Amino acid sequence: MTTPYTFAHLTALPIKEKCAELSRNGKVFHVIFAEQFDRDTLELLCSVATRLRKIAKSREGMDFLRGLLSHKSAMLYFTQPSTRTFLSFVRACQYLGMDYGEVRDPRISSAYKGESDIDGVRTFSNYFDIIIMRHPEAGFAERTAYTMNTTGMAIPVISAGAGPDEHPTQALLDAYTLKRSFENRKNGLAGLHVAFMGDVARGRTVRSLAKLLTLYPDVRMTFVAPEELRVRKDLGEWLDRKGVRWSETDDVKSVIADIDAIYVTRVQDEYDAGKSSKDIDYTPFHMTLELLSRMKPEAVVMHPLPRRAELDPAIDFDPRARYWDQERNGMWIRAALVAYVFNVESRILDFYAQHYSY
Amino acid sequence: MTTPYTFAHLTALPIKEKCAELSRNGKVFHVIFAEQFDRDTLELLCSVATRLRKIAKSREGMDFLRGLLSHKSAMLYFTQPSTRTFLSFVRACQYLGMDYGEVRDPRISSAYKGESDIDGVRTFSNYFDIIIMRHPEAGFAERTAYTMNTTGMAIPVISAGAGPDEHPTQALLDAYTLKRSFENRKNGLAGLHVAFMGDVARGRTVRSLAKLLTLYPDVRMTFVAPEELRVRKDLGEWLDRKGVRWSETDDVKSVIADIDAIYVTRVQDEYDAGKSSKDIDYTPFHMTLELLSRMKPEAVVMHPLPRRAELDPAIDFDPRARYWDQERNGMWIRAALVAYVFNVESRILDFYAQHYSY
Amino acid sequence: MTTPYTFAHLTALPIKEKCAELSRNGKVFHVIFAEQFDRDTLELLCSVATRLRKIAKSREGMDFLRGLLSHKSAMLYFTQPSTRTFLSFVRACQYLGMDYGEVRDPRISSAYKGESDIDGVRTFSNYFDIIIMRHPEAGFAERTAYTMNTTGMAIPVISAGAGPDEHPTQALLDAYTLKRSFENRKNGLAGLHVAFMGDVARGRTVRSLAKLLTLYPDVRMTFVAPEELRVRKDLGEWLDRKGVRWSETDDVKSVIADIDAIYVTRVQDEYDAGKSSKDIDYTPFHMTLELLSRMKPEAVVMHPLPRRAELDPAIDFDPRARYWDQERNGMWIRAALVAYVFNVESRILDFYAQHYSY
Repeated sequence: MTTPYTFAHLTALPIKEKCAELSRNGKVFHVIFAEQFDRDTLELLCSVATRLRKIAKSREGMDFLRGLLSHKSAMLYFTQPSTRTFLSFVRACQYLGMDYGEVRDPRISSAYKGESDIDGVRTFSNYFDIIIMRHPEAGFAERTAYTMNTTGMAIPVISAGAGPDEHPTQALLDAYTLKRSFENRKNGLAGLHVAFMGDVARGRTVRSLAKLLTLYPDVRMTFVAPEELRVRKDLGEWLDRKGVRWSETDDVKSVIADIDAIYVTRVQDEYDAGKSSKDIDYTPFHMTLELLSRMKPEAVVMHPLPRRAELDPAIDFDPRARYWDQERNGMWIRAALVAYVFNVESRILDFYAQHYSY
Repeated sequence: MTTPYTFAHLTALPIKEKCAELSRNGKVFHVIFAEQFDRDTLELLCSVATRLRKIAKSREGMDFLRGLLSHKSAMLYFTQPSTRTFLSFVRACQYLGMDYGEVRDPRISSAYKGESDIDGVRTFSNYFDIIIMRHPEAGFAERTAYTMNTTGMAIPVISAGAGPDEHPTQALLDAYTLKRSFENRKNGLAGLHVAFMGDVARGRTVRSLAKLLTLYPDVRMTFVAPEELRVRKDLGEWLDRKGVRWSETDDVKSVIADIDAIYVTRVQDEYDAGKSSKDIDYTPFHMTLELLSRMKPEAVVMHPLPRRAELDPAIDFDPRARYWDQERNGMWIRAALVAYVFNVESRILDFYAQHYSY
Repeated sequence: MTTPYTFAHLTALPIKEKCAELSRNGKVFHVIFAEQFDRDTLELLCSVATRLRKIAKSREGMDFLRGLLSHKSAMLYFTQPSTRTFLSFVRACQYLGMDYGEVRDPRISSAYKGESDIDGVRTFSNYFDIIIMRHPEAGFAERTAYTMNTTGMAIPVISAGAGPDEHPTQALLDAYTLKRSFENRKNGLAGLHVAFMGDVARGRTVRSLAKLLTLYPDVRMTFVAPEELRVRKDLGEWLDRKGVRWSETDDVKSVIADIDAIYVTRVQDEYDAGKSSKDIDYTPFHMTLELLSRMKPEAVVMHPLPRRAELDPAIDFDPRARYWDQERNGMWIRAALVAYVFNVESRILDFYAQHYSY
């Protein structure tokens, strides 16, 4: 008899082998790590997203999209509070015609009856065709994916954020936003200088995007953070291994005029342990109109949202602000990702080629 | 650069100019105040609602309705507890074939991360085509509507109740219920005598309906309330300006035989501040079988529900009881309103003319 | 005038007459008790469920199913925590193309405003075509069904679990699981020996399934439970009246080799009153690999889930484990039940006959 649910050996694997474990026939099946995406897949997803959003503008296009996955259903399992990620996945499912169910509040689920999380997700796999999940526990989406693989009735798992570590679909939407912002730039993302400002230690979006950007040659990264919230050792080592030129500073003014993009983040104080990050003076890492005025005219300001004081709302009305675009881009790249996981991305490309190319 | 989100000057406008601000091409775009509706628009909405409900009775009709807005999506943002208003908007969207997302519990949203409400609603506008919202804060729906207008990507906002002041769609359904109840009366609503009984100070449904009824000539209003919960000064002045004949009393027996409709409300003690309304003896303002027996045979009893002790369930089985009809009417008038906001109301009228008139 | 909402005389009726009260034209209309189902109806529902799940495998079949009840809507009113029952009903509605609304958290509903539960469900009946409900209060679904019958606008009510007593759709899925497990057995369920182990006193699934199994001749039942959680007197008397051979033991080893099915349950400590069931040594009533090894090769292990320690996850990978199948079966039998309540079950059988029989 198979020993059940044994994935301890998998969670201990090097990331490269983990990624292999999460793929099928060379294609990403479960989406857990930003590192799973190679450049071709990323470009494909961006291309599908851009076509999807154009197709969705017409009634005929909407009818086509709605038929793509109308026989499939998704479980949205969000036990960590979320609005935008949740709603953008809801919309992704709706655009593709999928049914979906949701659990957003663990207090109204069976967990209170003492059920294990793993039993909970096995249940979802009996009712639905994909699980999209956000969970406060680092590694839980990964364990879920491996569990699925041992049941003989595997359905894909997409992580919509897992603890402080990973948020692969945020990385996809951020990369997609950069690609759209620089689509007329000669080398695209190659050679871009990107600054990450704020809580670069614990911002999982920073970690995931930084990794994804290593797919493009010569991207430079500057991490602008208070002493206490600097780049964590594992990310630094990863970047070193990839040969990325990166540096740290606590003085944003020293780089603001040089960068092509600044990625601002809030203090992730929900992950505070022991010493509170509330004692840190965060104001030098606020994005202000004054800083904006020193940026290149074609540079962009990004933020994963929600924001607090670290990003002045007055910036919203500057054309370099890209964070509201990020939200919309997130909806479209997630729809593209779901289509890709279910192997219907080529039907979108074909439909586009037939109706919009001339 | 535009200064962002500046609507302080708008919230200070007289109501008439506010209403203009919330319209487009002479048509209501955002729905915030009962005062936005002129008589023609109100009559149109009632007419659409009545046709909608007939069309929905057949399979063919349902298929037609489902196709009307199947390319549109709604955000239902209900951070104040609600069952019937929420569910009736859900059904309105479903009848029109719309996708929708929902946030009903602020604790599971981004608000806990310190996000501003305005950022929250901007997010919704990136994912959805309309925002339908209920919020405990007076004026929040209004601010949301003005915010939308400043973003360059405005989507309509419908208030489903805002604090103690406004509940425009309840006023629509109440007026619609009166119209249906008196459709065979010679003058329709003109010259009707309507009593409002209970917490007329803080019942937002009372305020909104009273304003809407001023669109019909010679409507008389009697407010039956305890000393402490009388008509607020602003409503009284409004009615005076409109030339409405209105009066106040604490003795329902003095008017019960004369009125055409009695609109009963519960004590809105969720808005209690300082002195508790629980100390008030509310029993003289209860609608009882005994009072019912003194009413005209063609008069009607209304209540916005939910009820407590102020409305005897034994009345439910009297044909003059209209509060359960109000619920159904609410669903249909809200569907009509959503159709109207998206400019497809004429398609409903046309379909009806083709299939049901002869 | 009718005296409203008088069902005290109905709740006092013998069960047989209650069941008649809940039917229309000899057909189950409201689903409240396991006892409502006769053998023919149970066999019909199983047959519809089996055909439904096959039809749902094809795109064409899905399109057919989606059209069956696309003009109907369901209210899912789950004020007692539930994941699997809730989600399986959601999927049942989705497969049949129904719209649905949901209330899962009483804190965000009107109940906080002091509304009665009965008013709440009357409201649902104004918006939806069926109410599917789970409620912590024993008898509430029953009262709701009777209330519907007095309103003149009756819609069907399905109980998805009511307090400690009844869970009729769980009984259906359990019976369906047994039928599928023994479909190649000569006599089907007749003469089967079924053990119920655990909290047989308060496990409503035990009570409901035991009753349903009396529809098959010569089914033997053994209840394996600690002294404190033995079969309740009313169930024992019911089984006696039906002439069932049943017995009790606290020694599972004495019967494990003889039984055809073991139905394991967890301690229902949410119903603890006074003396806590947590003081009971429950380990002798745990289903272990060791016990499994003594079972017949064709016997089955069932559990209503969620589980805690009473069922070893290592058993999941044995072919005799049927609890994950129970979940899937639950989704299909609930879809079959909803179709049956709306009188479209014959269309499913016809479609199947046309497309899959040869």
